[in-house]
Amino acid sequence: MSPFQALRDLATEAAIISSSAATLGWDQETGMPAKASPWRSRQLGWLAGREHQLRTSQRWQAALDQAEPDNDRELASLREMRRNFERAACLPTAFVERETELTSQAKHAWAEARSKDDFAAFAPYLEQIVALLREKADLWGFEHEPYDALLEDYERGWTAEGIAGLFEALAPELRETAARAVERSVSRSPVLPAGPYPIEAQQAFNREVAASMGFDFDQGRIDTTTHPFCTTLGPADVRLTTRYDLDDFTSSLFGVMHEAGHGLYEQGLWAADFGLPAGGACSYGIHESQSRLWENHVGRSRAFWEKWLPVAGRHFPQLSGVSLDDFLAYVWKAGFTPIRVEADEATYDLHILLRFDLERRLLRGELAVADVPAAWNDAFEASFGSRPPSDREGCLQDIHWSMGGIGYFPTYTLGNLGAAQLFAAACRHPEIGSGVEKADYAGLLKWLRENVHDAGATLPPADLIRRATGEEPSAAAHLAHLRERYTA
Amino acid sequence: MSPFQALRDLATEAAIISSSAATLGWDQETGMPAKASPWRSRQLGWLAGREHQLRTSQRWQAALDQAEPDNDRELASLREMRRNFERAACLPTAFVERETELTSQAKHAWAEARSKDDFAAFAPYLEQIVALLREKADLWGFEHEPYDALLEDYERGWTAEGIAGLFEALAPELRETAARAVERSVSRSPVLPAGPYPIEAQQAFNREVAASMGFDFDQGRIDTTTHPFCTTLGPADVRLTTRYDLDDFTSSLFGVMHEAGHGLYEQGLWAADFGLPAGGACSYGIHESQSRLWENHVGRSRAFWEKWLPVAGRHFPQLSGVSLDDFLAYVWKAGFTPIRVEADEATYDLHILLRFDLERRLLRGELAVADVPAAWNDAFEASFGSRPPSDREGCLQDIHWSMGGIGYFPTYTLGNLGAAQLFAAACRHPEIGSGVEKADYAGLLKWLRENVHDAGATLPPADLIRRATGEEPSAAAHLAHLRERYTA
Repeated sequence: MSPFQALRDLATEAAIISSSAATLGWDQETGMPAKASPWRSRQLGWLAGREHQLRTSQRWQAALDQAEPDNDRELASLREMRRNFERAACLPTAFVERETELTSQAKHAWAEARSKDDFAAFAPYLEQIVALLREKADLWGFEHEPYDALLEDYERGWTAEGIAGLFEALAPELRETAARAVERSVSRSPVLPAGPYPIEAQQAFNREVAASMGFDFDQGRIDTTTHPFCTTLGPADVRLTTRYDLDDFTSSLFGVMHEAGHGLYEQGLWAADFGLPAGGACSYGIHESQSRLWENHVGRSRAFWEKWLPVAGRHFPQLSGVSLDDFLAYVWKAGFTPIRVEADEATYDLHILLRFDLERRLLRGELAVADVPAAWNDAFEASFGSRPPSDREGCLQDIHWSMGGIGYFPTYTLGNLGAAQLFAAACRHPEIGSGVEKADYAGLLKWLRENVHDAGATLPPADLIRRATGEEPSAAAHLAHLRERYTA
Repeated sequence: MSPFQALRDLATEAAIISSSAATLGWDQETGMPAKASPWRSRQLGWLAGREHQLRTSQRWQAALDQAEPDNDRELASLREMRRNFERAACLPTAFVERETELTSQAKHAWAEARSKDDFAAFAPYLEQIVALLREKADLWGFEHEPYDALLEDYERGWTAEGIAGLFEALAPELRETAARAVERSVSRSPVLPAGPYPIEAQQAFNREVAASMGFDFDQGRIDTTTHPFCTTLGPADVRLTTRYDLDDFTSSLFGVMHEAGHGLYEQGLWAADFGLPAGGACSYGIHESQSRLWENHVGRSRAFWEKWLPVAGRHFPQLSGVSLDDFLAYVWKAGFTPIRVEADEATYDLHILLRFDLERRLLRGELAVADVPAAWNDAFEASFGSRPPSDREGCLQDIHWSMGGIGYFPTYTLGNLGAAQLFAAACRHPEIGSGVEKADYAGLLKWLRENVHDAGATLPPADLIRRATGEEPSAAAHLAHLRERYTA
């Protein structure tokens, strides 16, 4: 056996376990009978236990110690795996168990607090979560502030200060663009012709679009769930989901284009390295850059609808009299909603900036949990011009903090910035740019394969952006895109 | 920990693993993308390995040695588990690996041989399988003949001689009834009104029928596959499948009623004993008795269609002018087909008798593999009056032998006999019989729960029949049923 093969075999075994769990998780969301839930939790618990056991085993450590990479991909995988192993080793088992227990309780407490609009009921859990995450950051160690240590799980190589700098540069123009987008949209108050848009027709249309993007249905499928997602069940098995609104076919379509963006990334990763960092995604932000690129830069573009509006008209006869301009006004409608997941492209990042600032202050000890609702509402008012009608539509709306996911939110905006930067860089190649203008995305996908997907996690996200675009990670392309689309 | 709890915990863990594999297997059949197959095999292989490792572990053996049952159910579970462990211990690992390898190759060879109608290509594999199964029987040991040892896996407590006696008593009248059923059906040549019977309407109707049987959709669902099946993914998660024929809604309906019969059995087993023999099915034959009971004794009865034909007419307008008698003539149509899985109720067992006799002679060394096609065709001609047009429609039609499943076929007919005997016994209770006459099956299901399902595998199948019916297992009820339905 080659000095790297033992590690490769262990990584494959871990991937077998985690992808089996992913299959059970997919079934849980797509159609599992209601009462099957407790047993499914036991199955998932058992699989998670086996994976954790393997990843922290002496066999794993020995394989890491003895591995001798043959090439750069193996070298990068080894580096990442050593880093992950060392980080895992920093956390005592008792700490991990405490974290699992607390977040499991906190998720339930959050769901109940949200449904009752009762922040005080969730506050004690958030207190404990913040304390635990500060402890975790101490265990991992950091140079400047605790947030940096947590960020390593989501977007390695970034620091809170780096993100803050990026966001500060983004904020003023973002606010202005958002305000102008909303103003313009409100004045036009665009509407879609009345439904129903039958689900079967939506499914046929979505499938046609996803296939045209390059999504391989021999290695994937689309199902229906309340919350759309993309999950990978194996090196040739990527599942997307969406939800259907009978009054608005664009809801399921943009859901599919977003998830298919994630799915194209997963299908572009190297199957031969499945389970190894070289065959895995680079980061949450880079993953999100792929979904946002296809959803927003492709799916909400004029060129896309020049080609696809007539096709949509064949699936949905009520679209036959709609002009491209009127339709695009609907696709580009913007408005200030308190709810992040309902936000449009022009206002979305404002929700993220708000969250990043609050959670950074929480971790620094500059903001007390009890003061979160007021701080949230003040920040929201400063950005959106009004206060959320309730905490349910304010600081209680997201599940992330209850899961211990502080540090996750910035990856949404990093994804938006990455999408714009990568798309612009790709389109600077004349043949890709002219393809995109004709809604032909073969060249774009090839470029993404070569510049993003092939690399897997062999380099940190900022390096990947640098290598692919020749630029520092920046907000410029994203702002230019929003300006052009929403204020021109 | 109580002296039985350790064993219970291990059995639960084994059930967690096997039910996770069942979930992956279900997904494989219901919608997995084509190219996902190789990875899925690796996942299933890993899970099978973990289950085998656990079931043959020293922990398992120690728990068996130290268990002290608190009650009769635990005592029965312990007895069955000790028996299974001892049987497993009889087989050297090298033997098990050889068997796995051979049957895996043989399945592929069989599929290819069948598609090319080339028995000679499959013969060498069948030779090896027969030799291997004789070796296996020797390893397990037996009193009279090798078949007995294999039968213990499918229908414990039965011997080949016992089954032969039962089948011999059945054969003459079965042949006569089948001939009269076919003659009567051919003379009437019943037809169903022309399709299409839309799939959505079939699904709605099937669901209504399955729910009226008592199938709990909060603990199960129905999906679509090429070959209908029922699989259990957890103590509250039973999945049925069926297939749709646009020209004949009864095809998917009887598929659903058959699988829901299996499903009601699974839903009736004790969730608290899930993973233990007391919470598992008694045998293949008893399982089949439940599916046949609901499919044939309920679903093909006059009383059932008195209630459900008008309902079907609301789902399928083309049925509106059809009389109950004409419809029942269609439901009871009979004919001699060479293909077992297409056979009707009146002729089905003839296919099984033929297979049982041949495979028993194969194992005894009285029939050479090379002589199987001729022996098959002779036997078929003796039963059905004509020779199969090809081996593909003869001795190559079934997958069972290629999987090493000699001893499995008799359970289909044991299921038919059990269905008739149990149904007749239940209906002797006036309130159950009168319920059945009104197509109200609550009393019937309650009786099955108490007399079949609750027992799990705490007693052997023949004992279960004796206890439930007060009679020896016999063909009398089945023959009386066929006579009444097909020759009256």
